Amino acid sequence: MYAQAYFDYDSKKSGGVTMSHLRFGKKPIKSTYLIKTANFVACHNPSYVRKYNMVQELVDGGTFLLNCAWSPEELEEHLPGQVKKYIADHNIKFYTIDGVKIGIATGMGPTRINTILQSAFFKLANIIPEEQAIDLMKAAAKATYGRKGDDVVQKNWAAIDEGAKQIVEIKVPESWKDAADEGLAFKKATCGTDDQLAFVNGVQAAVNSQTGNDLPVSAFKDYVDGSTPSGTSAFEKRGIAVNIPNWVPENCIQCGRCSYVCPHAVIRTYALTEEEAAKAEAEGSQLLPFTGMAQYKFTIGISAYDCTGCGSCANVCPGKKGAKALEMVNAEANSAAAQKKFDYLVTTSEKEDVVEKFKLNTVKGSQYRKPLLEFSGACAGCGETPYAKLITQMFGDRMYIANATGCSSIWGNSSPSTPYTFNSKGRGPAWDNSLFEDAAEFGYGMLLAQKAIRDGLKTKVEAIAEKEGVAQEAAKEWLDTFACGVENGPATDKLVAALEECGCEAGKEILAQKDFLAKKSQWIFGGDGWAFDIGYGGVDHVLASGRDINVMVFNTEVYSNTGGQSSKATPTGAVAQFAAAGKETKQKDLAGMAMTYGYVYVAQIAMGADFNQAVKAIAEAEAYPGPSLIIAYAPCINHGIKKGMSKAMTEEALAVETGYWYNFRYNPQLAAEGKDAFILDSKAPKGDYQEFLNGEVRYNSLMRANPERAKRLFAKNEAESKAKWEYLNRLIDLYKAKAEE
Amino acid sequence: MYAQAYFDYDSKKSGGVTMSHLRFGKKPIKSTYLIKTANFVACHNPSYVRKYNMVQELVDGGTFLLNCAWSPEELEEHLPGQVKKYIADHNIKFYTIDGVKIGIATGMGPTRINTILQSAFFKLANIIPEEQAIDLMKAAAKATYGRKGDDVVQKNWAAIDEGAKQIVEIKVPESWKDAADEGLAFKKATCGTDDQLAFVNGVQAAVNSQTGNDLPVSAFKDYVDGSTPSGTSAFEKRGIAVNIPNWVPENCIQCGRCSYVCPHAVIRTYALTEEEAAKAEAEGSQLLPFTGMAQYKFTIGISAYDCTGCGSCANVCPGKKGAKALEMVNAEANSAAAQKKFDYLVTTSEKEDVVEKFKLNTVKGSQYRKPLLEFSGACAGCGETPYAKLITQMFGDRMYIANATGCSSIWGNSSPSTPYTFNSKGRGPAWDNSLFEDAAEFGYGMLLAQKAIRDGLKTKVEAIAEKEGVAQEAAKEWLDTFACGVENGPATDKLVAALEECGCEAGKEILAQKDFLAKKSQWIFGGDGWAFDIGYGGVDHVLASGRDINVMVFNTEVYSNTGGQSSKATPTGAVAQFAAAGKETKQKDLAGMAMTYGYVYVAQIAMGADFNQAVKAIAEAEAYPGPSLIIAYAPCINHGIKKGMSKAMTEEALAVETGYWYNFRYNPQLAAEGKDAFILDSKAPKGDYQEFLNGEVRYNSLMRANPERAKRLFAKNEAESKAKWEYLNRLIDLYKAKAEE
Repeated sequence: MYAQAYFDYDSKKSGGVTMSHLRFGKKPIKSTYLIKTANFVACHNPSYVRKYNMVQELVDGGTFLLNCAWSPEELEEHLPGQVKKYIADHNIKFYTIDGVKIGIATGMGPTRINTILQSAFFKLANIIPEEQAIDLMKAAAKATYGRKGDDVVQKNWAAIDEGAKQIVEIKVPESWKDAADEGLAFKKATCGTDDQLAFVNGVQAAVNSQTGNDLPVSAFKDYVDGSTPSGTSAFEKRGIAVNIPNWVPENCIQCGRCSYVCPHAVIRTYALTEEEAAKAEAEGSQLLPFTGMAQYKFTIGISAYDCTGCGSCANVCPGKKGAKALEMVNAEANSAAAQKKFDYLVTTSEKEDVVEKFKLNTVKGSQYRKPLLEFSGACAGCGETPYAKLITQMFGDRMYIANATGCSSIWGNSSPSTPYTFNSKGRGPAWDNSLFEDAAEFGYGMLLAQKAIRDGLKTKVEAIAEKEGVAQEAAKEWLDTFACGVENGPATDKLVAALEECGCEAGKEILAQKDFLAKKSQWIFGGDGWAFDIGYGGVDHVLASGRDINVMVFNTEVYSNTGGQSSKATPTGAVAQFAAAGKETKQKDLAGMAMTYGYVYVAQIAMGADFNQAVKAIAEAEAYPGPSLIIAYAPCINHGIKKGMSKAMTEEALAVETGYWYNFRYNPQLAAEGKDAFILDSKAPKGDYQEFLNGEVRYNSLMRANPERAKRLFAKNEAESKAKWEYLNRLIDLYKAKAEE
Repeated sequence: MYAQAYFDYDSKKSGGVTMSHLRFGKKPIKSTYLIKTANFVACHNPSYVRKYNMVQELVDGGTFLLNCAWSPEELEEHLPGQVKKYIADHNIKFYTIDGVKIGIATGMGPTRINTILQSAFFKLANIIPEEQAIDLMKAAAKATYGRKGDDVVQKNWAAIDEGAKQIVEIKVPESWKDAADEGLAFKKATCGTDDQLAFVNGVQAAVNSQTGNDLPVSAFKDYVDGSTPSGTSAFEKRGIAVNIPNWVPENCIQCGRCSYVCPHAVIRTYALTEEEAAKAEAEGSQLLPFTGMAQYKFTIGISAYDCTGCGSCANVCPGKKGAKALEMVNAEANSAAAQKKFDYLVTTSEKEDVVEKFKLNTVKGSQYRKPLLEFSGACAGCGETPYAKLITQMFGDRMYIANATGCSSIWGNSSPSTPYTFNSKGRGPAWDNSLFEDAAEFGYGMLLAQKAIRDGLKTKVEAIAEKEGVAQEAAKEWLDTFACGVENGPATDKLVAALEECGCEAGKEILAQKDFLAKKSQWIFGGDGWAFDIGYGGVDHVLASGRDINVMVFNTEVYSNTGGQSSKATPTGAVAQFAAAGKETKQKDLAGMAMTYGYVYVAQIAMGADFNQAVKAIAEAEAYPGPSLIIAYAPCINHGIKKGMSKAMTEEALAVETGYWYNFRYNPQLAAEGKDAFILDSKAPKGDYQEFLNGEVRYNSLMRANPERAKRLFAKNEAESKAKWEYLNRLIDLYKAKAEE
């Protein structure tokens, strides 16, 4: 048999849609178009029957397989009228299968249903004899997963057997012929800025309904420069979680960790005024007195339909007396109520006095700023987004981001929606993505362009500061704070107000460029494949420049976006593509290399290991008036963490505890002040290093495939970790303040 | 007036030919072709009248200006017949000028004659009134050289004045109409390998006679893959020196420094057998008893027609009791005799026992191997070529070089000739040049290709080593020395001999690839613009690979080949293109960055400061069975060394003495042996740091242009140097052997 497959999919890491167009035949197939008349359609996600036209491309007498937990009676309720009618009118053979249930029963888990559905497909489509198909699928599973362990193979085999067995044929009632068309679930967005609504209703909705190819060119006329409105991911509400967190106020200590670690900015802490509190209560929110600030009430909001259900929040919740303040509950039953509460809470005002009291560079304080990165398409439990989200909370209102291609550019802007958003003042990050190989240079260009414009404005403001007038004082304050982001923002607000009041010609000229007035926080985001490898030449060049620019590296120790190729950040013994037998050389010391400049702020952080150190390092990096490099340890689905991605933060903690990863900071400012510049934040390693390696499939798989080699490489890895600890301790001396002469 | 200029030139840094095709007129000039019928021809170099057809493109009644020191009577002797006849037949107005004499008299120096000749041109060509031309030229000189100091401007002005004044009109004798054609000076090469002779006579001679454009395509049929024979620069004998060294045996201590530092491999030390000594004496060589090996006589050979006259040899000569063993003498008077001696000496055998006695990793010992880089087109006094030449003496017979674009690729192969050559066994470096931005990757590819072939051969040799036979022992020895270049070479010779003796099929298969049998020494050559900047990503990747590969960086602290742009190797305060006001940031610590790997051998060297350390470091780098990085300080004409390039080695010594540059070595092998890995070869800085900076125009010019800024930047530069000394001393501790536990 010949086969042909086109896979039509977006780039979302979670909640994305893939359409597989498969053809089989006895002659070679050379069709260059997608399938529009299908003999067989399988829908792997029950929610799709209301979102997309799932059955309308089936031929008369074709087969429809729906993955759902619905009984025949429940189908009556859940299937929209147009689907029922089409099935009945066109004599469609209709089957269901409960892939999630089988997934759980076979140990595959609730999300790994592809093997189950594949098996069901081969049974129903009858392309080759069922027995033969099952044998071939089992052989393929062994070949693919053999290295990951016998248990993984056995689970797959069970999934294959059950997938073929547990198909339910649905008797189609005659009444379905009369079912009324209910239309697709899409609701026109009505609440948002004008440009958001225009884009969301005009483009995004069509793309997300899989009808984007039908849009006319004219639909894009407002976006010809490639820019689209911010904050449009909030309109997607993909509702993909199986379980969502539920807040248990009596166990809550208001620490803010849940909000801090949430990869999708779904769970948030709120300080409410009396008035807001009353309204929140009316929407169903529970309230607590706000610890430390009696004028406020405390609550937690959960955007249930944006949640991926990773459970990271519940995992890090310290709770009270062993009882967690977050429990994971069924999404279907609880989402509507949770979302209702959130939808009000998100409209309440940001409390700058809370941020001031608890400080922006603390876990708690930072969480009272709106995340300006929300509801991205990152994987459930992503180790990267919590860092990025935190950075937007701290500096997002005056931030430019140049993003290297990679996972961070995918969750950073997976067309058509963008998760970067703005605060109540309309301020948020300006974000753009460049090529993998020159993102650092791209960000450097942003900085220089901005510098050129701002230097021009400076000359004009200086003229205003020189003569008496309504804007003189404001101009002086703006000039005094020119290079300091934290202070120049408020000073800019004052200057703009004064110039508007003045109404003078000179003022108007400045106001025409007012977006460029405030000191910006320039960032370059990217992964380790970019920073350690392909974009390293540029990273180095930008760091060498001495300019005030911040480089943020999400280090998953592997090329994540493209499926796990080995990078120079991949440690000894880790299995990756192009290093199938485990990498021979150790992780490159990017931090150490950057420190050789002496004028580059450098930090290694791992949020889950030290919540405070992470936010502190980020604050220091941004405040340092020269180049900064932050290398953040980020667990990834490519690691195959055996505990699951809900334990990403725990894994970070374990990595640091065992000395697999070290946290530290090098601050040139300290050296300039005559202080020791290198601070080793990690404690001496303890615990079983090999057990840590064994907890991740990227290592563990080598132990099965080649135990001899694994033993040697893992011992080398551990020895390198020990040597690194010794080395880092010596760096304390290397960067010790010079003794007074 | 409108002007148009095409400059037709090769890429040689010394002894190259430039033809300036200039047109002037009152209407815009849009001619897209070179000038073939000229009103005016100036020949700036008297030797050209015998090498090229200098006057044959002049129109009847045109003007010929010849720069020479010849009196009208001497012209009779020196001008070839065809030139005399053309001048007389075509009524050419003939003038001479002694640019060298004027250059010396005005303080411009003997080589800076362009301003003088330009002035003479404007006087004779009469394009604009002479007075006006002189005023404009003076204004231009002020604008161009103003920053370099008033004295420089004054010298230029004097040159302009004298150039116009000191023209001599030559009365053309009637007798010249009868002068016989003597042909061009080119002599057909008769002595060399077949492929050398074919290339030199078939292509190189035409290109070097400026008639390369007339060659038919068929002339290149043997070179379609881009490769050309090695060792063809030796056929050029450009004879460009004004002065050449002359050996004074009675003052010679046979140290070999002259040979060691010669940028063009022109001066060489020889150990001669009795027989050779007799023949050498017959050719005019003087002899000394060879110190330490009574069976040999010592002499020095000088390839006078390949010498550029830089005087570096005489500069470093220690001599005896204050009397140097080398004196610079007039080239014209002494070249023929010197060349005759050399031409015999270069045919004598290499004395491997001398190398063995004095060791290859010493100044003296290394000089008894033939330089496999000779007579390049590098600048007189070039700081780069002495390093490269030394490396070819040490490993050239088994060496692959991947060369980044830059000066080293220009002197490494300035078409049509190549200075890389081979020894008496026919073995020499395989050299190729890749793009600026990927030379490291290119060299890495060479290594991997070679590894793949050699690993294949290894399997075949293993089969031979397994069973009894004539080649069994040789096969075993080859396998035992597989990874060691020094030992595997002789083992390969034995294996080849044994396999040839054997004549077996398996042996034939191996012999078919015998060029790949011996362990090669893989090198990547490039400058700082490549290694610190544009090619750094690749350099880093190759170093990270852990493979046995050697990276050699010729650090001129500036993009030399393209005329002096700032690189990340440019130190604080140095003036360069794109850093016209002096660079603000300090030199990147490439060595420190490479050391962070822990498995990369790293050295900084400056030959002239420590002759022994340089050769030792190169030997260690090559012997280390992993990646190596050598960063070599290389004075360059771009530095504007006030003492002149003949003092390049002295400048290196001064750089290290004052702490402007530091020599050190980091050897991972030592760490593996439980020893301290970092050796600081430099001594504590002393002497006047600012005086050192002041000795080079790249710094000094800023002091004149902007003294305030210069003072600040130079103080920063000095402070950075002091901090670096402190830092390097701390590196001793950082890389100290771990205390026994």
